Order: sequence, then structure tokens, then C-alpha cells
Amino acid sequence: MQQFLIDHALLLAIGFALVGVIAAVALAYQVRGMDAGDGKMRSIASAIEEGAAAYLSRQMRAVAAIALLLFLLIGIFKSWWAGGGFLLGAGCSFLAGFIGMRVAVLANVRTAQAATIGSQRAMHVAFRGGAVTGLLVVGLALFSVGTFYFLSFTHQGLRETVSSLVGLALGASLISVFARLGGGIYTKAADVGADLTGKIEQRLEEDDPRNPATIADNVGDNVGDCAGMAADVFETYVVSLIGAVLVAAISLGGDPAATMYPFLVGCITVVGALCGIGYVSYSKAPADRALLQGVIANGVVAAILFLPLCLWLFPDRWAQEYSCSVIGLLMTAAMVMITDHYTKITGKPVQRIARASQTGHATNIIAGLALGMEATALPVLFIALAVLVTFWLDQLYGVAIAVRCMLSMAGVVISLDSFGPITDNAGGIAVMSGLPKQTRQVTDELDAVGNTMKAVTKGYAIGSAGLAALVLFGSYVEELRHYSSQATAEGLQFRLQDPKVIVGLFLGALLPYVFAARSMAAVGNAAGAVVEEVRKQIVEIPGLLQGTAKPLYGRCVDIVTKAALHEMVLPALLPLILVVAIAVIPGLGPVVLGGALIGTIVTGLFVAISMTSGGGAWDNAKKYIEEGHYGGKGSETHAAAVTGDTVGDPYKDTAGPAINPMIKVVNVLAILVIGIFARYWNL
Amino acid sequence: MQQFLIDHALLLAIGFALVGVIAAVALAYQVRGMDAGDGKMRSIASAIEEGAAAYLSRQMRAVAAIALLLFLLIGIFKSWWAGGGFLLGAGCSFLAGFIGMRVAVLANVRTAQAATIGSQRAMHVAFRGGAVTGLLVVGLALFSVGTFYFLSFTHQGLRETVSSLVGLALGASLISVFARLGGGIYTKAADVGADLTGKIEQRLEEDDPRNPATIADNVGDNVGDCAGMAADVFETYVVSLIGAVLVAAISLGGDPAATMYPFLVGCITVVGALCGIGYVSYSKAPADRALLQGVIANGVVAAILFLPLCLWLFPDRWAQEYSCSVIGLLMTAAMVMITDHYTKITGKPVQRIARASQTGHATNIIAGLALGMEATALPVLFIALAVLVTFWLDQLYGVAIAVRCMLSMAGVVISLDSFGPITDNAGGIAVMSGLPKQTRQVTDELDAVGNTMKAVTKGYAIGSAGLAALVLFGSYVEELRHYSSQATAEGLQFRLQDPKVIVGLFLGALLPYVFAARSMAAVGNAAGAVVEEVRKQIVEIPGLLQGTAKPLYGRCVDIVTKAALHEMVLPALLPLILVVAIAVIPGLGPVVLGGALIGTIVTGLFVAISMTSGGGAWDNAKKYIEEGHYGGKGSETHAAAVTGDTVGDPYKDTAGPAINPMIKVVNVLAILVIGIFARYWNL
Repeated sequence: MQQFLIDHALLLAIGFALVGVIAAVALAYQVRGMDAGDGKMRSIASAIEEGAAAYLSRQMRAVAAIALLLFLLIGIFKSWWAGGGFLLGAGCSFLAGFIGMRVAVLANVRTAQAATIGSQRAMHVAFRGGAVTGLLVVGLALFSVGTFYFLSFTHQGLRETVSSLVGLALGASLISVFARLGGGIYTKAADVGADLTGKIEQRLEEDDPRNPATIADNVGDNVGDCAGMAADVFETYVVSLIGAVLVAAISLGGDPAATMYPFLVGCITVVGALCGIGYVSYSKAPADRALLQGVIANGVVAAILFLPLCLWLFPDRWAQEYSCSVIGLLMTAAMVMITDHYTKITGKPVQRIARASQTGHATNIIAGLALGMEATALPVLFIALAVLVTFWLDQLYGVAIAVRCMLSMAGVVISLDSFGPITDNAGGIAVMSGLPKQTRQVTDELDAVGNTMKAVTKGYAIGSAGLAALVLFGSYVEELRHYSSQATAEGLQFRLQDPKVIVGLFLGALLPYVFAARSMAAVGNAAGAVVEEVRKQIVEIPGLLQGTAKPLYGRCVDIVTKAALHEMVLPALLPLILVVAIAVIPGLGPVVLGGALIGTIVTGLFVAISMTSGGGAWDNAKKYIEEGHYGGKGSETHAAAVTGDTVGDPYKDTAGPAINPMIKVVNVLAILVIGIFARYWNL
Repeated sequence: MQQFLIDHALLLAIGFALVGVIAAVALAYQVRGMDAGDGKMRSIASAIEEGAAAYLSRQMRAVAAIALLLFLLIGIFKSWWAGGGFLLGAGCSFLAGFIGMRVAVLANVRTAQAATIGSQRAMHVAFRGGAVTGLLVVGLALFSVGTFYFLSFTHQGLRETVSSLVGLALGASLISVFARLGGGIYTKAADVGADLTGKIEQRLEEDDPRNPATIADNVGDNVGDCAGMAADVFETYVVSLIGAVLVAAISLGGDPAATMYPFLVGCITVVGALCGIGYVSYSKAPADRALLQGVIANGVVAAILFLPLCLWLFPDRWAQEYSCSVIGLLMTAAMVMITDHYTKITGKPVQRIARASQTGHATNIIAGLALGMEATALPVLFIALAVLVTFWLDQLYGVAIAVRCMLSMAGVVISLDSFGPITDNAGGIAVMSGLPKQTRQVTDELDAVGNTMKAVTKGYAIGSAGLAALVLFGSYVEELRHYSSQATAEGLQFRLQDPKVIVGLFLGALLPYVFAARSMAAVGNAAGAVVEEVRKQIVEIPGLLQGTAKPLYGRCVDIVTKAALHEMVLPALLPLILVVAIAVIPGLGPVVLGGALIGTIVTGLFVAISMTSGGGAWDNAKKYIEEGHYGGKGSETHAAAVTGDTVGDPYKDTAGPAINPMIKVVNVLAILVIGIFARYWNL
């Protein structure tokens, strides 16, 4: 059985991957066949769709130039296989986001229509829309890596295949940074801009059709939360798979069982995702419980199926590998529960922020900032514990397996995450097309559930990203050793006593700070452009605020699109600049680079967790007050809470989540440049 | 000459230290002899004085219990010399803060009185008050370390002396954490509480005598900014001196020239401080220029005097040591200039925040947070560069000398820093005792200068603290090696590939986050108590707002005192808990601890710099708007800027600066526990 599995692992992976993709396509057609409501709803939905498609195609063109340049550089300096992998990774990452977004804009209007019938029905439509992305990501990721490995392995050896896979990982990571950052800037610039002019200046409700930035705001949900998140998790999935293969190939000398286990875990991922999604689709429980039960169902199925796989594949050490696999699942549970604790509307932390809002804007902000910082403690302690235990169980491979199995929940997790923007959009369409009030109530309830899900999945994404990056660092060290002669290996020890390591730690640690600062400033700049445009339209278009004249939605969409694309380039290129600068500057080099990789992981984790948790808590503190506590909507307390929510927007949806792929770009790129700079470094 | 200097270095140091202390006392008497104004002014000043003294004596009692316990533990488990050193360090640290604060409350009323005559006169009085603290700190620190070293060295060997000196450093650091944290919570709880009720709820001016929290607010300036900063820099000075001696004794095998150079630098520090202070005292330039020229004067004198000292003491390698010394001075200049750039009212960064305030509270906050994060880049790059160059010049000793010489500017820097709260208080006294408006104008101008000085000195304090902590980490590694057998030394390599190092980095990195979160929450809690008390007094005391009845200032002072002391304990003990927990928990131990030391330094630097820079920029953005830009005082833009300023308060005056001593407590404590846990760790 062991030999059979090893021999057929890749074919199995490709087969299961196709099952996932086909299920996604079937589900997409099912969603498409549902009732899309009346003409007004359809026209609003198509305006959102057009805006989103226009943005993504422009984003693609903007990124394509950079990607092509990198393809050539990688091809020339490394190998054309690696260059091809880069293009494949980049293409699939983009595709996952693009299709997910297309389906989301199909699902939003159908969810709004379903909401006129009932809450449960609306929930099922929205979830199916999200599930398309979930299945697509796990299917496409497994398919691309499996096929590439298969082709490369039959044409060149293991060593070269592994080296080319790094190109694939870089492609996925890079597109993911752009998608996360561009989408994040887009969605929050539109959101903040619409809120500042609509809610605060003109006292309009959310999604009021008189606000010229409304369509842009709804487009943002799709390009940021749908396409961005899909690319992000696609990338983490790919990196967790490639990272585990790297460790098996480099550190374990290509042990076949160890090399193939990560692919076989991918098969279980597809099965688990189908089970979890199926469970939710037929559940009669309230939305929030149904969704979490879907996650549990996925986890249980995975935990059961891992056991025979480990027994067959690792007869001598199945206990270690199985333990590491289960630790991965438990880490998912831990991350989900911890983030839930800090961001759920019924929890003490959120209510502490709500209480602090009574004494004004400033105390709301202080409470939220303190909460975000505090919320880093438990996730980091769990990550530290997981590293210690899995490393003790099976060295770096143990860590790699834990991350790999953490990602085996990716299918359901992305489904949950995409659920959020779909319901959010459905609410927008309901308001704009004048559906009855109770429809809006249904979508509002689902939207609140979606908010929690979004926060929770971010905790999962950053936790797994941190662990995956540690695995990559291990591969960097091993790869460096592979290239270095015996004489120089002594100098590549990465000791904390070495000032180069310290300097590297500082430089790497700087990256998340500068990156976050730049992306927050980008949101501010782009939002400012929206505010100006809205103010201009209010002046220039008579009858706009009275509802007798239609605003020019397209102009806002256009402005945000341009601003987001313009603002994303510099921060997205920061990790590339850092790695190349350290590699090139005399006196720095590989040891400093190693320190920088860890430095980025350390502060990256803290900055990202504090931002996503703090932002989620601010959001729900506002919702808590809107439920009627401390004076409710319209009170001074509520105004203070809106400030916190607005600050939290770029925190939790732009800067925070974009750090995940950035951490990995740095690490993947470092592995890639070793071969290129080996001579220059005198290895 | 070399032999003469080595033989007499300690006596010279003690002698110069006494000169510094005597000059401080003389200056204090001079300040005391100045005109203290009329009866009303005196009565307000004495109310502030009473409150400050009451707080410090309660703080001393609260800390004394913890200090006594640690004294016993150190005495029993380490040595009574180390225990004695601990008490000496703690006592002197407290004394420096205490006397500095006493003189500040003498100087504030005299500055207010002098302000009735003219701006220049007021500046000179305030600066002399600050200079007392400056001279006292550099004198007392040199005196305590010099005398202790002298006594210990004549009774026991170098090895034991060095080991006992660590106790002295711990005493200084621990008191400093308490002083910074307790004082920081006090000052900002009173400030925020007074602002929220006075400025925002009742629309009273700053320092309006009808506000029951006014006196507490003014007390806070003294216990936080005067006593806290004095203890902080005292501690950094002591640690920089002891750190350099440790490196000379442990790494360089007790090379006498290298061991004595740090003490001789102390002599130059006193001379430099006297020159700098003398220059400012007789300068006719405007306040801000005079103060900065004083710093330059100190730097030039030091740079000149270091040269012959290095030539005499290190005939073979004077160039290296002199270069490291000058790099220390240049680092001071760099830190001052960078912080100045990010926080000065005429700079682009501050004006960017002011502009962002036009679109509301939220955009003001986003701009400030982004700015704080961005402001970490240059200081960290300079620190990295300094580490690389000084290490290249003379290994760890080079780094130690750079920090030591950075601290040779401490005298003037503290004088500048204490200048701030004295002028701030002078303004308060002027308003409360009804002095004419132009007097307030004079104190307001000086207060604005004081704000910039305070921000600038914080950049200096955190930069030097980070470098000093790196030196301590080096000593930790060396000390560990000293205790370990050949067989175990191999396991103590602190490689980044070692999961224990990674886990240590994570645990250490967590500390500044949790510490900052807790101390910000503490300010929130204590400020809430003030708000409640003020609201109660407004209801209970008829005629309070009309000015016909006097508020009960004492009750607010009392509440803040209790709250600050209560809230400071847990965060201040966090570093102790972490070090002991890592030392004791099986599976962790010395390697994890080493990682944690570096982890704390890395995130500590980033968190502290982003907080102090962001806070300073918010403060001055508000001032910029108050100067009449973007609608000026009373506009919506101003309200948004006030929010940013209030958020910045705990950022820049509580959490941020308290991280400096915390970083060093962790590192010093780690060195101290090696001897205690050596057997338990099986070294």
C-alpha cells in the first residue's frame, strides 16, 4: 500500500484536484441558474459586476508588466522551468481570485432575491456562492502544483523540480500581495470615502443610492474581500504544499513517502471541503452555527482520514506524522476560537471598546489599539507551542506537516470568508433597488455573521502564514548550505551573537512597519480622492440629494480604480527591493538576509494580528452600540464608535491581511536568489 | 600617562561625579533663592508640590516591598554584594527622580513669576531648574557605579565585582520601570481625565481652576515627565556604563584600559554637561535655538576631549576607540534630528496629520498611526548601521563604547527634557493665579519649545536603550559561556535554525506588545476614574462651574495616585515573570531566554519609536491647527486633532517611553539569573 500510494500520489492529487474544480464549476452553474430578481436589481448587480471586472482586468494589466519582467529575469538567471512555474503560479492565483469574484457578483443579487423569501434560503445561496471560491482554490492549487511537479519531475531530477517549484510559489505569492493590497486599498478607500461623505457629512444611510460612491463601495467588497482573500489563501495553500515538499526533498534527502504526503493531504482537503460545504448546504441551523459546524465537519473528516494515510505511508513513524497533522487541525481551531473571542459582538473585549466609546472618540481608539496589541498574545503563544512540539516530533518536517494540514481546512474557510462580501453586497442591492425593509433585515443579520467569519478567517490566514514562513526560512538555510562549500558553511550559522544577524532582524522587522504605514497612507490618499469627487458631484448635479437626479457612479469607480492601482505598486515592491538590496550591498549578504527573513516573520505576525483583531473588534463594537446599547445609533457614543470602525477599516482589510503574503514573498524570494547570487556571495 | 589614567580612573570618576552633584546642589539653591511670586501663586505651587511628594512617597513604599524581596532573593541566591548593588541602584535611581521633581516644583512657580518680566528670563529659570536634574543624574550615576566598583574591587576580584554590578544595574532598571510606568499612568490619566471633562464636556480652557482635575494634571507633569524621565535616563546611563565594563571584563579578559575608559568618559560627561548648561544659561538666542546650541556645545566639547583620552589610553588602537566614541555622538545627533523631523510643528509629517484632520477624527488617527509606523525606519536603519560599523571596528566593545558615548550627552538632554514640564506647570500656575494674559503667552511659547524637546529626547532615550540592550545581550551570551562546560557550550549557539531561538524571539517580541497594551488600558481605566470624580464634583458642589466654590483638588490627586500605583504593578512585573518563567519551565531554558532578549529588543524598539513619534506628531498637529490653520481652535478639524492628541498621550508619555527601561530589565535580569539557574540548566 505504501508503494502504491507513493507511486500514484501525484495522479491521485491531480484527480482529486479536478474533482474539486468540477464541483466548483457545477456549483457556479447552480448559482447562476437561480432567480436574479427584477430588472432594477439586475442593473445594479451588473453595475457592480462591470466595476469589479474592469478593476481586475486593469490590475492584471498593471501587474502583468512586472510579472513578465520577473519571468524573464527568473528564466535567464535561474531556469526556464522556474520561470514557467512563476507564470503558472501567478496565473492560477489570479484565476482563483477572478473566478471567485465573478461568482460572488452572480451570488449577491440572487442572495438579495432569496432574502425576500427567507433567511435560510438567502444563507444557502450566499454560502454556495462562497463555496465556489473555496472549492476552486483548493482544486486549482493542488492541480497546478501537482501537474507542474509531475511534468518537471519526468523531465528533470528532484533537485531541479524543487528549485523550479520555488518559482511557482513566488508567482502565487507575488500576485497575492498585489491582489490583497490593490483590492484592500480599493475596498477601504471606497468604503471610507463613502462613509465620510455619506454617513458623516450628509447623514445618509449605508448604501443609499444617492451617494455617488455606493457602487464603488460594493465593487470594493468583491475585489478586496473576495478576489483578495482567494488569492491570499491560494498562495498560502501553494506555499504550504511547496514548503513541505522542499523540506522533504532538501532536508530529508527526497524521502518518497515524506515528499508525497503533502500531495495526498491535498486529496483529503478536497474531500473535507466537499463534506464541510455539503454539511452547511443542507443544515437547518441558524447561519452562524451552521457555518461553524461546517468547519468542524471538515476538521473531523480530515482528522479521521489522516490516520490510515499516515499508517500506510509511514509504517515506522506514523504516530509522529499523525500527531503533527492533528496539531495543524488544532491550530486552526485555536486560531478561530481566539479571534472569535476578541472580535465577537457578545464578547467582553468588544464590549470594553463599546464602553470606552462613552467617553469619546479618543478613548474608543485607545481601547481598540490596546485590545489589538493584547490580542497578539494567545495566537503567538499557540504558534510558539506548535513550533516547539512539532519540531520535537519530526524536526522541520513536523512543522511543515502541521502547516500543510492547517491548510487542509482552506476550502471551507474561504467559503466562509466569501460569504461575508456576498451578503454585504446583497444588502446593498436590497437597499438600492428599494426592496422591502424585512429583506434588508435578513441581509443585515447575515452580514453580521459574515463579519465575524471574515475576522475569524483572517486569524487563521495569518497564523498559517507565519508558520509557513518559518518552514520557508528553514528551506532557505538548507538551500544555502547546499550551495556553500565546507569552508564557508561555518560562516553561515545565523547566530544571534553575530551583528549581521541582528542587523538582518532589524531590517526585516522594519518591512511590515513600513509596508503597513504605506498601505494605510494609501487608503487615506485614495479615500481623499473619493471624498473630493463626491463633494463635487453634490455641487454639480442638481437634485442629487433629493433623489431626482442619478449620481455618476462610474466616475467614483474610475477614481478608486486608478488610485488603488497607483498606490499599490510601491508597497508591493518593498519586499523585492529589500531582498535584492540585502543581497547586493557589500557587507550585508546571505547572513543578513537570513536575519531579515525571521525579522519580517516576527514583527509581521504581531502587526498583522494586532491590526486584524483590533479592526474586527472596532467594527463589532459599533454594531453592539447600534443594537441599542449606550444610546444606540445617532448618539455621541455611536459617533465615537464609527470613528473606531473607520480606523479599523484599513487596519483589518488593507494593511493587516496584506502582510500575510508579503512575509512569504520575502522568504520565497530569498530561496530563489540563492542560486543567482551564490557566486557573488563567494559561497 | 596611560598607567596614571588607569590607576586613577575611579578616583577621577568619583571626583568629577562629586563636582556634578555639587554643581546641581548649588544650582538648586540658586533656583530656590529666586522670586516665587505672590501668595496665590505660592499656594498653588505648594498644592502641586504636596501632590507630587505624596505620590512619590507612596510609590516608594509600594515599590520598596518588591525591592526588599528582590534584595533578599539576590542576596541569598547570588551574593550580598549583588544585593547591596541592587539596593544602591534602586536608591539612587529613586533619588535622582525625587530631587529632580522637587527642584522642578520649585522652578515652575519661579518661571511663572519670571514670565511676568520677560520670555528670556523665564527660559533661563526653567532651564536652570531642568539643569539641576541633568547634572544630578550624570553625577549620581557616575558616583554610585564608581564608588561601588571601587569598594567591591578592593574587597573581591574583578569577576565578582562585575557580577555584583549587574545587581546595581537591575536595581536602577527596575525602579526606572516603576517610575516611568507609574508616573506615565499618573500624568496621562490626569491629563486625559481633565481634558475629557474640562475641555470636551464643559468647554473649559486648559488649567482652568474650576476643573477639579487641574492640580492632578499639573502634578502629573512632575511625577511623569520629571521624575520618570530622570529615572529612565539615570538607568540608561548606569546600564551603558556597566554594560561597557561587563564587555571589557568578560570578553576582553579585564583589559585595564578598556575597563576604565567608560568611567573616564563619565568625567567628560560632567564637563560636557557643565559646558552645555553654561552655554544655554548665558545665551541670548531664542529658546529653541539656545537649547539645541547647548546640545551641540556639549557634543563638540565631548568630541574634542575624547581624542586625547583615547590617544593616552589606547596608544595602539586609539583610532578605533575614538571612532566608536564619535559614532556614539553622531547617533545622538541622528536620533535628535530624525525625531525632530517627524514631530516638529513646521515639518511636513505633522502638517500631513493636520490636513487629514479636515476629513474627521478617523482620518486624523489613520494618518498618525501610519506616521508613527513610518517613523521607525530611519532610526532603525541608523542603529543597524551603527551596530555594523562599531562591531567591525572593535567587536562588542565597539558597540558598548558607542552607547557609552551616546550617553555622554545625558546631562544636557535631561536638562532639556525637564524644561518641558516646568514651563507646562508655569503656564498652569499663571492661569490658575490669574496672571495677565501676556504672561500666559510667554509660558505657552516656552511650552511649545518644551514639547519638541520632550519628543526629541525620547528618540534619544529609546535609541540608546536599544543599543545598550544589545550590549547586554552580548554579555548574557558571554556570561553563559563562562558558566557552561565545554560539552554544553556547543548547545548554546543561538542559531536562528533552532526552534528554541525562534520560540524565544516570539516570546520576547510579545513582551512590548502586552506591556504596551496593559499600560494603555491602565491609562484608560485611571482616566475613567477621574472623569467620574469630576462629574460627581460638578453635581455635588454648587457654584463650582460659576467659580464661586472651590473644587476639591485633593480628591482627584488621591484617586489618580491610587489608580496609578494599582495599575503599574502588573505591567512592571511582566518582564520579571517572563524571564523567570522561561528559566524555570522545562523544555525552555537559556537558549529560549537568549532568543527572548533579542525579541524584546526588536519589537520594543519598533513599538516605542512608533508610539513616541506618532504621539509627538499628533500633539503638534493639534498645535498647528491652533495656530489658525484649517479653521483653527473650535473648528471640527480642531476637534479631530484633539482626538489624535488624546490618543497620543498614553502613546508617547506612558507606554512608549516605559518600554526603554523594560527592555533593559529583561536583559539585565537574564544575566543575573544565569548564576542562579546554572545548575538547574545543567550548564
